[in-house]
Amino acid sequence: MSKKKKKVEVCYSPALYPYYRNDNSIVVVADILRATTSICAAFKNGAKSLIPVAGLDEARKWKEKGYLVAAERDGLVLDFADFGNSPFNFSPSRVKGATIVYSTTNGTQAIKTASGAKHVAIGAFINLTALSGWLISEDADVVVLCAGWKNRYNLEDSVFAGALAAKLTGSGNFFTDCDAALAAIELWNIAQNDLCGYMDKAAHRHRLRKLGLDDIMEYCHTPDSTQVVPVLKDHLLVDYNKYFVEDNNSQQT
Amino acid sequence: MSKKKKKVEVCYSPALYPYYRNDNSIVVVADILRATTSICAAFKNGAKSLIPVAGLDEARKWKEKGYLVAAERDGLVLDFADFGNSPFNFSPSRVKGATIVYSTTNGTQAIKTASGAKHVAIGAFINLTALSGWLISEDADVVVLCAGWKNRYNLEDSVFAGALAAKLTGSGNFFTDCDAALAAIELWNIAQNDLCGYMDKAAHRHRLRKLGLDDIMEYCHTPDSTQVVPVLKDHLLVDYNKYFVEDNNSQQT
Repeated sequence: MSKKKKKVEVCYSPALYPYYRNDNSIVVVADILRATTSICAAFKNGAKSLIPVAGLDEARKWKEKGYLVAAERDGLVLDFADFGNSPFNFSPSRVKGATIVYSTTNGTQAIKTASGAKHVAIGAFINLTALSGWLISEDADVVVLCAGWKNRYNLEDSVFAGALAAKLTGSGNFFTDCDAALAAIELWNIAQNDLCGYMDKAAHRHRLRKLGLDDIMEYCHTPDSTQVVPVLKDHLLVDYNKYFVEDNNSQQT
Repeated sequence: MSKKKKKVEVCYSPALYPYYRNDNSIVVVADILRATTSICAAFKNGAKSLIPVAGLDEARKWKEKGYLVAAERDGLVLDFADFGNSPFNFSPSRVKGATIVYSTTNGTQAIKTASGAKHVAIGAFINLTALSGWLISEDADVVVLCAGWKNRYNLEDSVFAGALAAKLTGSGNFFTDCDAALAAIELWNIAQNDLCGYMDKAAHRHRLRKLGLDDIMEYCHTPDSTQVVPVLKDHLLVDYNKYFVEDNNSQQT
């Protein structure tokens, strides 16, 4: 007997999440420029775990306790933080083996918003195929939650949502009857052959350019540079592969 | 000296309106299936004015006062109402010269949401060109507010938003730096050559088909069958052309 297909839906803003919420689903948070790309980069480069915090007061308290803190607002590094929100900041020499406290304008708030779901996972172009493989193996409905920009729709998160929805429905294990997912897949179909070029029109690309922070465009829009699947586990982000799979393997041996 | 271009933005849900609100702008409310198409049909067929009401209690009170009431929820006519939300209900024999009280699942709530704007206008494919001509003459920023489906994104309102944004930016009088407008224009570019066929994938089309209410698909997706431009004037919807233009002309003669 063939398995019943699971549903994939797309929510374009944290402010719309109440209308998409399904606590039996896995929520994939996407903030391509730059929080979720940076989280994947951190795990790729050996970070042990990340503590996502929504508020700056909370981030500052962790700093006072001696933690490594990455924090930005509107693209700029906070004065008390060790570094900001560029994936290039999360270099192996800085993050290997470390637990990093992380607060950003949109991304970490979206993670908090979704925390009632069955699982919360972190999505970016750089872990697209690894993430979709994991989602297919988990066999649960999926809601892709776009972090957006201060609750407004943005292009880069929506195109990523389309890429993921296309992978999942294309696998035969998922269906969608969600108009937002259908529209996102259309955008992905237009953008996929020149993803970085297509993103030239995105509003946040212009914000970053004005700040001299757009050196990360190619990195953020190059699929599959890592196999990490960051997931939320008791308020901590860990790499599913390291935390669950390798630990189980080592317990079994 | 050339005039400064005005901005057009697209808001995909009434729940996102606080993040797009600009009280110097004209808000165009779009609920293609079916409220805003029906409002345009009512004026096309000679209605004098419409009173949009968000709540059913309010609609019932107007009925008790003797008004003609159109009211639906989830596609179905309310028992106390004279008729429901199909544009075919607003026939000349019913509406000519009449003031109609109107309450729907999404559309009339969206009109209330936008009521702080400089003007609130009603948009549908059937008045697309007339509406865009009026917006260009008004020379104000425009926010297209998609009524959506219970605050979720929907395809038909978004494609309409793209059609209107494309008309406005194509006129040379408007620009956009709004990612939602850019994405909507992409959808319109895909859909425009077979609009009704494209809408076959929309979730609400399937809801209406299940209810046997999808006979209006072609009517709702055929551009420019009317020149009316319904606008909100002191809590009443009137046709701008009749109310302001013809009245002024008759005062001048």
